[in-house]
Amino acid sequence: MKLMRYGDAGHEVPAVLTADVDGRERVLDLSPVTRDIDRGFWEAGGLRLVRDALDRGLRELPVSGVRVGAPVARPGKVVCIGLNYRDHAEETGAAIPARPVVFMKDPGTVVGPYDTVPIPRGSTKTDWEVELAVVIGRRTRYLASPDTALEYVAGYAISNDVSEREFQLEYSSQWDLGKSCEGFNPLGPVLVPADDVPDPQSLGLRLRVDGVQRQHGHTKQMIFDVAHVIWYLSQYMVLEPGDVINTGTPAGVALGLPDAPYLRPGQVVELEIDGLGSQRQTFTAAREATA
Amino acid sequence: MKLMRYGDAGHEVPAVLTADVDGRERVLDLSPVTRDIDRGFWEAGGLRLVRDALDRGLRELPVSGVRVGAPVARPGKVVCIGLNYRDHAEETGAAIPARPVVFMKDPGTVVGPYDTVPIPRGSTKTDWEVELAVVIGRRTRYLASPDTALEYVAGYAISNDVSEREFQLEYSSQWDLGKSCEGFNPLGPVLVPADDVPDPQSLGLRLRVDGVQRQHGHTKQMIFDVAHVIWYLSQYMVLEPGDVINTGTPAGVALGLPDAPYLRPGQVVELEIDGLGSQRQTFTAAREATA
Repeated sequence: MKLMRYGDAGHEVPAVLTADVDGRERVLDLSPVTRDIDRGFWEAGGLRLVRDALDRGLRELPVSGVRVGAPVARPGKVVCIGLNYRDHAEETGAAIPARPVVFMKDPGTVVGPYDTVPIPRGSTKTDWEVELAVVIGRRTRYLASPDTALEYVAGYAISNDVSEREFQLEYSSQWDLGKSCEGFNPLGPVLVPADDVPDPQSLGLRLRVDGVQRQHGHTKQMIFDVAHVIWYLSQYMVLEPGDVINTGTPAGVALGLPDAPYLRPGQVVELEIDGLGSQRQTFTAAREATA
Repeated sequence: MKLMRYGDAGHEVPAVLTADVDGRERVLDLSPVTRDIDRGFWEAGGLRLVRDALDRGLRELPVSGVRVGAPVARPGKVVCIGLNYRDHAEETGAAIPARPVVFMKDPGTVVGPYDTVPIPRGSTKTDWEVELAVVIGRRTRYLASPDTALEYVAGYAISNDVSEREFQLEYSSQWDLGKSCEGFNPLGPVLVPADDVPDPQSLGLRLRVDGVQRQHGHTKQMIFDVAHVIWYLSQYMVLEPGDVINTGTPAGVALGLPDAPYLRPGQVVELEIDGLGSQRQTFTAAREATA
């Protein structure tokens, strides 16, 4: 079972992707179960509601030609962990952090996995970052230890933590500006429930630009694993259902490559994580309109 | 006319504060007009809806003994400008920034102006920051110049950008962790519509701790004024109705005082900005429960 959302941006319909006994995948309409895959959905029971509805029967959702949205509604917050893979910290010239480096993205940057991503006006250093995204399923604060942290995970998805390096690193000491540009967080296509990802530290991550493989990492290389990150964050902030955590990227971003091949309009970025599907975005020049 | 929200956290009722011909203030129930003071309210017409409803007549809302919430619903994002007053930059030992320093708070930190604020577990450096908060009223991106930026403001409120300096400055290079603790953004009590604040650069800001005046600044001392900040942010992110911008704090925070008098449980912080009312919070030790 995987959760998805289909429809135009801002008007997505929640859906569940199931495989029947023949292995044929079917997309079923979750509208009778929940208005959206949002905080209220998780607070009302989340996947239990879906399982009950599947037992009663759900209608097939016609999705041919329909846009795939992010698999969760706009999050309450998007928290990111910087420099969380040793090889990526090294390629950027940063020290290996002693604690998780925590920053945030505008939650409005979350878009669908196949949406076009604007290269911001004035940008010459738009960069990619394949990451394992964690979606929180239960409210938590001051977790006693990392041992129980994964119980608070609703599921996992692919995230592209798109970054503009000049805005991020050269304009001030704080990174959020270069992380929060329009459309800078493609998410999905699916949210895989935590029960179907027994070990979030056993997933390969890959990213290609115009067919050239640029990132090829593995979540076992995280400096701070998913459980540690959730436990750590809970000591300093309240994690709420629907919040998204981007857990960091492995080596291979443009910033770290010898020729710094930042993205140009027309380039295509493809991302994959084992068991979580794949994304594909075309990058284009940002529209100039003000609205 | 001022907007307010009354009721328990998460269950606030929107209201408008008006003065009748005798100058007596009345709190009127905006529930028939809008579900909340949120993005949808601004998109549907905002203050025009309120004025039309006032012409038709609104019922008085009984508010005796009722909690005052933040004057706006949970924002889509809270963007903060760091080091935006020369005297504050100097007291913290930072250089005067050449561009606005942009960081973010968890939008879930927004609470009412008289709510108790938890001092996080393990904190020894919880600090105050009185700031002018700007609430965005219309979506904007790539504004052509600061000249029209104030047209995108819904209104103004008092904000306490509470900060834990060890988490902010000593744990990593990124500040968001020490800005995003539970309850760290008291907002309100009122949202004053932009039309009633002809010049946001002509407001005095004051903050007292246990009756001792600690901050006494003026928005004319901002390095980057409100219009510049909105224009600048719009070059890098999409500003949406209901978003909150904390525009920076003047000198006088604990971090900058010779004896670094960080907040201890039981201390009372009072904030005022000319024309925007006043806040009052008691700081207490954070509850230890995990939910």
